[in-house]
Amino acid sequence: MSTPMSTDPITSSDNRWLKRVRKAATHHDEEILLEGPKQVEDALARGLTPIAIFVQEDRVPPNGSDPRIIHRVSERAFRSLGETATPQGVVALFARPETSLENVIAAPGSIVAVDGVQDPGNVGAIVRLAAAFDLAGVLVLSGSADPWSPRAIRGSAGAVLETRVATTTPARLREAAEAAGRPMLVAMPSGPSIDRGLPPDAIVVLGSEGRGVSSDLVAAASPFSIPTSGRVESLNVATAAAIAIWEMTRSGRR
Amino acid sequence: MSTPMSTDPITSSDNRWLKRVRKAATHHDEEILLEGPKQVEDALARGLTPIAIFVQEDRVPPNGSDPRIIHRVSERAFRSLGETATPQGVVALFARPETSLENVIAAPGSIVAVDGVQDPGNVGAIVRLAAAFDLAGVLVLSGSADPWSPRAIRGSAGAVLETRVATTTPARLREAAEAAGRPMLVAMPSGPSIDRGLPPDAIVVLGSEGRGVSSDLVAAASPFSIPTSGRVESLNVATAAAIAIWEMTRSGRR
Repeated sequence: MSTPMSTDPITSSDNRWLKRVRKAATHHDEEILLEGPKQVEDALARGLTPIAIFVQEDRVPPNGSDPRIIHRVSERAFRSLGETATPQGVVALFARPETSLENVIAAPGSIVAVDGVQDPGNVGAIVRLAAAFDLAGVLVLSGSADPWSPRAIRGSAGAVLETRVATTTPARLREAAEAAGRPMLVAMPSGPSIDRGLPPDAIVVLGSEGRGVSSDLVAAASPFSIPTSGRVESLNVATAAAIAIWEMTRSGRR
Repeated sequence: MSTPMSTDPITSSDNRWLKRVRKAATHHDEEILLEGPKQVEDALARGLTPIAIFVQEDRVPPNGSDPRIIHRVSERAFRSLGETATPQGVVALFARPETSLENVIAAPGSIVAVDGVQDPGNVGAIVRLAAAFDLAGVLVLSGSADPWSPRAIRGSAGAVLETRVATTTPARLREAAEAAGRPMLVAMPSGPSIDRGLPPDAIVVLGSEGRGVSSDLVAAASPFSIPTSGRVESLNVATAAAIAIWEMTRSGRR
């Protein structure tokens, strides 16, 4: 590791810190990449753990940053961090703020689980809905896009930093839902209409538009459907989530 | 133009028909590009006007295609048509099937208008909702993504071929709404909650997440809001559309 407090700006795109930033953009198992002053300031205000903050030499460091972990970067070297980072002039590495399956299950409110939802924009939009409607959290099952990828974080408009999000497997989810007595619901074309209401403590599982929900979850869940005209085979998964979450939280708004 | 019925396959990526296909992928004012046998077959079944159909030499032409407008293309030349087209082996040029503002306004049901929504995936997801909930149609205002771009067509899962979609301007929309006596509604943080109901003949205008709706439309419209926790500044525009459309069509489902 290079010295955390660098007085001279980093000028080479081969610098090992910048390599670590580029790695966090594609592999976010331990360290996640936040882009732009707003995301970084929100994460600091929220008490997330910063590892290093990178500021283009002509820019102002984000409010609340510890000067000891700030690295100044030349404009040219900053450009090696990618298209989205470049115009903003600030990026940071944070410890991945994932919570546990148990924490999500134990929190009050309904839960959305996504199974095989591969588009990071859709996963981000669903996390954003969970924050907007105060759900207990979001469970991301294996085979879905990582909610802490840069594209999913952007799709969530930063809400992934404000919401309980955990990754898990269908088998663990099934076990935890049964132990907690939470009803599991899956969207199925033949299920009873969502207009009849959804229990506010439910876990709604949404599958990929092509393959649907894993069969062992379907076996443990009750079906529901969003009644449509039949002119389309399915809805975009984030818009289906919006309607399900809106119905699940209806009783709390009244 | 080359002969419509080509017996020898097109082998050069410089072929003028293939140039026309690549042009339609980026400029879709008159001709739109459909990708894959399903989209092409749906469009033919729907009675849209095909201009030319391109089939990789080892693939089967889509059902319902007129042999006189089929062009065989070598695998190598087909690859020049882009990443999405390539694995499917079938693309087609169709006349842009845009309807008029007047047709949308005159059709029964509610209407969604998008103003400055730049992401084609969001525009496509909203068109898909309009088809799923039998809206009168979708109005796409200047400054939004073109609903007939390949990405928007994919985002709509082909629903843009099944739904009335027109492009227009804020001024023309305002005039047409007033003439037809249709109420216009815009999402505003301070508006009355959507939980109180939305008129089923309304035109709901959704703006970009950053800039909102054009001020001259706001002046002519009534505000409404989707009540949220305040933990996010806004919802993704397609998920906001889902909730608004779900509420507008509620009375028709009961």
